[in-house]
Amino acid sequence: MALIVQKFGGTSVGSPEKIKAVAQRVLGYCREGHRMVVVLSAMSGETDRLVALAHEIQKIPNRREMDMLLATGEQVTVSLFAMAVKEAGYDAVSLLGDQVAIHTDASHTKARIRSIDTRLIKEHLDKGRVVTIAGFQGVTDDGDITTLGRGGSDTTAVALAAALSADACEIFTDVEGIFTTDPNICTKARKIDTITYDEMLELASLGAKVLDIRSVGLAKRFRVPLHVRSTFTENEGTWVVEEEKKMESMLVSGITYNKNEARITVNHVPDQPGVAAKIFIPISDAGIIVDMIIQNTRSGDMTDMTFTVMRSDYERAMEILRKVAADIGARSVTGDQDIVKVSIVGVGMRNHSGIASTMFQVLSNEGINIMMISTSEIKVSCIIAEKYTELAVRALHDAFALDKKDLPLPQEEKF
Amino acid sequence: MALIVQKFGGTSVGSPEKIKAVAQRVLGYCREGHRMVVVLSAMSGETDRLVALAHEIQKIPNRREMDMLLATGEQVTVSLFAMAVKEAGYDAVSLLGDQVAIHTDASHTKARIRSIDTRLIKEHLDKGRVVTIAGFQGVTDDGDITTLGRGGSDTTAVALAAALSADACEIFTDVEGIFTTDPNICTKARKIDTITYDEMLELASLGAKVLDIRSVGLAKRFRVPLHVRSTFTENEGTWVVEEEKKMESMLVSGITYNKNEARITVNHVPDQPGVAAKIFIPISDAGIIVDMIIQNTRSGDMTDMTFTVMRSDYERAMEILRKVAADIGARSVTGDQDIVKVSIVGVGMRNHSGIASTMFQVLSNEGINIMMISTSEIKVSCIIAEKYTELAVRALHDAFALDKKDLPLPQEEKF
Repeated sequence: MALIVQKFGGTSVGSPEKIKAVAQRVLGYCREGHRMVVVLSAMSGETDRLVALAHEIQKIPNRREMDMLLATGEQVTVSLFAMAVKEAGYDAVSLLGDQVAIHTDASHTKARIRSIDTRLIKEHLDKGRVVTIAGFQGVTDDGDITTLGRGGSDTTAVALAAALSADACEIFTDVEGIFTTDPNICTKARKIDTITYDEMLELASLGAKVLDIRSVGLAKRFRVPLHVRSTFTENEGTWVVEEEKKMESMLVSGITYNKNEARITVNHVPDQPGVAAKIFIPISDAGIIVDMIIQNTRSGDMTDMTFTVMRSDYERAMEILRKVAADIGARSVTGDQDIVKVSIVGVGMRNHSGIASTMFQVLSNEGINIMMISTSEIKVSCIIAEKYTELAVRALHDAFALDKKDLPLPQEEKF
Repeated sequence: MALIVQKFGGTSVGSPEKIKAVAQRVLGYCREGHRMVVVLSAMSGETDRLVALAHEIQKIPNRREMDMLLATGEQVTVSLFAMAVKEAGYDAVSLLGDQVAIHTDASHTKARIRSIDTRLIKEHLDKGRVVTIAGFQGVTDDGDITTLGRGGSDTTAVALAAALSADACEIFTDVEGIFTTDPNICTKARKIDTITYDEMLELASLGAKVLDIRSVGLAKRFRVPLHVRSTFTENEGTWVVEEEKKMESMLVSGITYNKNEARITVNHVPDQPGVAAKIFIPISDAGIIVDMIIQNTRSGDMTDMTFTVMRSDYERAMEILRKVAADIGARSVTGDQDIVKVSIVGVGMRNHSGIASTMFQVLSNEGINIMMISTSEIKVSCIIAEKYTELAVRALHDAFALDKKDLPLPQEEKF
């Protein structure tokens, strides 16, 4: 008998029929003797509808009131879900964020969970009830309703699983799990059975459509076994677990790409102490997030500073940097929006050499020029021209044999 | 500078545009220096939509979960309203029933208010904020959300006005006020300027479309001056006040009719002690409410027992009574659904004789047979054939000159 936290997203509870189907699925676990906590999102489309209403009223909606408004979406689904469980002859009770209580800070529309009171949940579980909890919402010390931002229901589920020391947290969604790469551009993409928290964090863009990435960090911190799976099949999905529990032995677990970045180069910067700060402080002051940074030494006492920002911040960043360049005596600022960041991710590469060079060779074989490289312990990222995205992803997927499961690791060890 | 509680119904807040218009109206009072508490219903149609969703899920929806579901309707309008006030440059804050807190018993879907904590409201008012409060909802001692039943927002408004010792409670609706009778069947019907709580209670069916009748009892108990008026005009509506504050002096204040009753007669009942109990206990055990009861003495030791029930309970009552009649040795049970109860109401009649007989004479002049009569201190009701409804109402309206305002009372006093 296990304690399981399950989270169902908006598409899974988008209609009364679907809510009834979810209730039946949860009751299957109850019949097996499990204690069930069910976290729900708002019905698909509902949050957007409410946001649109708010914008009809106030140009920049007040954030406290926005949270008050948006929290109704999950309140509707949990009450309907509790009814569905009761209609099926089992006992259930719905609880809101403030009833649980899920304590958060007061950062309305993007609050962070501080603590969760599990007393009431445990009381209801002890009485044999399915406890359904509104995702996405919490309460401040002053009793104001907060929301955790888009994808916040995943965070609610993982945080509850952590607080309750649940045996697993299952995230039900409309896909089968996490794939080795985007199936839309690589038909050989394969569903991953197990993956580590760290790999999942690095594969953010692959998982972003499926799983809120903040919840992965939380799951890692509290060692909550996460299971990402489909609402619409009985198949196992992808387990996100600690490294020692990972069953698959792969050098590379997944290949991800990100088309939302743009590259900026400040050319011929005097190579002096403090020059990097002069470039990046105005950028961060403007709230612009910088991803990769590379400094190339040029001839003499000059250097080039190249980095990437979100495409949506590109124009703003260029404007700021033109002023900065004049101040610091750089020659020019150039940029390029037609780039893509392709990354290979895998804990296996931590102990094996040659992974990065294989990647470079594969891209080179396809005639793809690498503009920037950045590496971390379990990831290698290359910036290339955007037009090569599909070609690069497919070639890398083949080269690392990601379509094959449990490929034995090569014997050579790093060092 | 007054403290005013205003309540706007679902049609008044049925769209973002309407919510903005209500905000502008409320801000007019703010500019005059008044402290404003605004109680809102759900957008028109929203409660019905939610009820329908619940019925798609559970045949007889669980009442705790129903309250959880329905409470979202008002949560949406108060948050949008607070945004509208802020957009207009004033400060506002929305509060839910459990945040205030409005403490109720645990009778879900028809809870009764036990007490209201005014601390938080006063704090916000002191900070110069418009405080908007979700109508219709409260919270139990266990922290569960309750609702007060249909029309419950009126009760919320009056209870808040009482708890805050507000100077007035204004109920905004889609009609101009309370009329001397139904304007749909009597074109001479006139808007009443002032009426007493007791008259309003007796005129329930006239006011039912405008004002939840429970809230009138509450207003009476706490002497809250109630103002029923239109959202769509600036005109004064009808003030519901204590008797000494009533400005109009009328023998009869209004004429009301009720087509929802049916008449049942148990014929030839042995005239013995306990026989009435034998008839009415099974009826009340079945949850059927009996309105008028008349016992006619027949010849000898037999009597007829006649009474009215709601038409929706008629068939069920007849079925029960056929069994009862056999038990107590009554001859037969007969009934009639084509009846109407026409009533004249007025505190003036308390001190004046001849009101009831005038009513009987007026009906007789029109050739209308009276089937049953019942009187209270400020009301006379007659059961007549339903087909005479309009004729009776118009004739009585003329006879008591209700189209004329401030008719001097006749000089003769009762006793």
